[in-house]
Amino acid sequence: MTQKKQAIQPNHFVVIMAGGTGTRFWPYSRKSRPKQFLDILGTGKSLLRITYERFIPVCNPENIFIVTNQEYADLVEEIIPEIATEQILLEPVKKNTAPCIALASYKIRKKNPDAIITVTPADHMIFQEDKFFKALSVARDGATDQGKLITIGIRPSRPETGYGYIQYIPGKEVLKKVKTFTEKPEAGLAQKFLESGEFVWNAGIFIWHVNAIIDALNHCLPEIGEVFEEIQNEFYTDGEEKAIFNAYSQTKNISIDYGVMEKAPNVYVVLGSFSWSDLGSWNTLHELSEQDTEKNVVKANAILYDTEGCYVQAPMDKLLVVKGLKNYLITENEKVILICPKDDEKAFKDFTIDVKKQKGDEYL
Amino acid sequence: MTQKKQAIQPNHFVVIMAGGTGTRFWPYSRKSRPKQFLDILGTGKSLLRITYERFIPVCNPENIFIVTNQEYADLVEEIIPEIATEQILLEPVKKNTAPCIALASYKIRKKNPDAIITVTPADHMIFQEDKFFKALSVARDGATDQGKLITIGIRPSRPETGYGYIQYIPGKEVLKKVKTFTEKPEAGLAQKFLESGEFVWNAGIFIWHVNAIIDALNHCLPEIGEVFEEIQNEFYTDGEEKAIFNAYSQTKNISIDYGVMEKAPNVYVVLGSFSWSDLGSWNTLHELSEQDTEKNVVKANAILYDTEGCYVQAPMDKLLVVKGLKNYLITENEKVILICPKDDEKAFKDFTIDVKKQKGDEYL
Repeated sequence: MTQKKQAIQPNHFVVIMAGGTGTRFWPYSRKSRPKQFLDILGTGKSLLRITYERFIPVCNPENIFIVTNQEYADLVEEIIPEIATEQILLEPVKKNTAPCIALASYKIRKKNPDAIITVTPADHMIFQEDKFFKALSVARDGATDQGKLITIGIRPSRPETGYGYIQYIPGKEVLKKVKTFTEKPEAGLAQKFLESGEFVWNAGIFIWHVNAIIDALNHCLPEIGEVFEEIQNEFYTDGEEKAIFNAYSQTKNISIDYGVMEKAPNVYVVLGSFSWSDLGSWNTLHELSEQDTEKNVVKANAILYDTEGCYVQAPMDKLLVVKGLKNYLITENEKVILICPKDDEKAFKDFTIDVKKQKGDEYL
Repeated sequence: MTQKKQAIQPNHFVVIMAGGTGTRFWPYSRKSRPKQFLDILGTGKSLLRITYERFIPVCNPENIFIVTNQEYADLVEEIIPEIATEQILLEPVKKNTAPCIALASYKIRKKNPDAIITVTPADHMIFQEDKFFKALSVARDGATDQGKLITIGIRPSRPETGYGYIQYIPGKEVLKKVKTFTEKPEAGLAQKFLESGEFVWNAGIFIWHVNAIIDALNHCLPEIGEVFEEIQNEFYTDGEEKAIFNAYSQTKNISIDYGVMEKAPNVYVVLGSFSWSDLGSWNTLHELSEQDTEKNVVKANAILYDTEGCYVQAPMDKLLVVKGLKNYLITENEKVILICPKDDEKAFKDFTIDVKKQKGDEYL
């Protein structure tokens, strides 16, 4: 078993990024309970819980940190009651992934200057965990070299336009030097990426020595590095909360991909062949969920007529009667009903903006 | 003004039939509050209230009777608080319109053996009331002849397939002898009816002397006539409720159209040119309601995108976000959400049957 091969090492740390607001799944996912805190796959466990448990066989539970917005502190404690309060790092404002990773990295370095950190989103799905652990093990071994920023790339199975791609320099090394990062490509380009064999999906999972990421932050995003250098003496003291608040009010809003990974010269990728999904759209969720003979995913008390390829989700105390819809999403919470063509991903992003503008915050 | 011409006569009575369960508008109309008790047109008044008020200028309010199921007694009193309890006739079970009319007729005859009764559904809509009153006046005059059953027919403005038709013998008389009643015709036939000029829509409004309808019941539906002949001595006594219960348990379930009007030899029609609608379908309601520039009728707190010709109805505390629907009904109550092509009238009839079978009574 892979678990046996993965000895739990005291230097191994995991940072779970759980601060997203999940607007693409609104109104199922609401601002008060975003996607990562929902049992979106119907497994009985929230995505954050699944992610946390995934690392238990390969990381000392005391070394698992969760970074989230302070608004969600109670949700994290509800979902992972066994975690210590100091393992939950609270962000006073949402500033994307670079400040989140900076905060976790500086805090962990103070605890263990030899830490090898795995950074992972809280709301992605990994199947075939054995294969994931294998790639993770390779990456962690590589990360002992303090000069490398390592990411895990997924061998693409289709010309997906919803993911970012990583191009690497082919060769026999298990750690492959990265040439370029590409944001979500057009269909034609995605097809070329797939055919070239030199591109993998960017899973947003990073593995690095704590010194490697802190060096990279200071080189690529010096204004962020500076801010956290300044406050590090306050960590694990009574002044920490105020110091973090001050740091976040100065730091800019930027992703680690854009701010560091696309710029740093020392980025490597380990190829993984496990199944992975960012669960980034209703369509993705529909594909991964159990479907009935009409390809409907029904997580509701519903009667459907002439209805195919739909995702139907509502609290069980409400009866949904639906006739004549193809490939629609129908979702309801106590405040909102949403009906929309399931593959209209742009629409799902826009809804919360329009609702906020036209109706105010109460429905978000 | 027509009202002035219509002297209120002590012999004039009105019977409002308000016992329907309104399944075609489920779930907006529920078994606990069917269509006639709802403000379905958004005027601030329920259809029953509108119907009741329509007759106030032309009938002594003490002579207006409302027949409904005993389940709805409280609703009638809520909607028409000024009416006396004895003017609300309660049916212990639903047995269609013939027993309803028999009950009202025998009760009214005991009060006034010279009564001229207008029978009307509670849930239809009449615009241009002046024209209606004119037709009513002609019909009432004709009904003093105790040998005539008179109905009001609406000159058709289109080859409607949702209504019943009455064929009459053309001529100059204002009371035209009826040749045939036809249930909802196919489109081709409806077109021929329209072109012939000899057909009018059956508005379900009847005017007759109380003796005329009681004679007709005894001839055409003797088993119903007998039952009410037997219990008439109990009316206005303490034994009335029990007697009506017994009568209804014996009487058959049959409409006045099928049981009497289609069989009796002495049926006449007065032509009316007022606007009338039976408000019998969501499509009809959509046509009669105020529409926005995309032909949507929105009686809800909603944001619509790429949505046309829809009828959207929900409590205002819920936000509906809808994209990409054409000609659908979307309606919600506290227990049910229904989404269906708006013109699928058969479907609306079937839903309550299926829901009762699959999910039980709680959603009806």
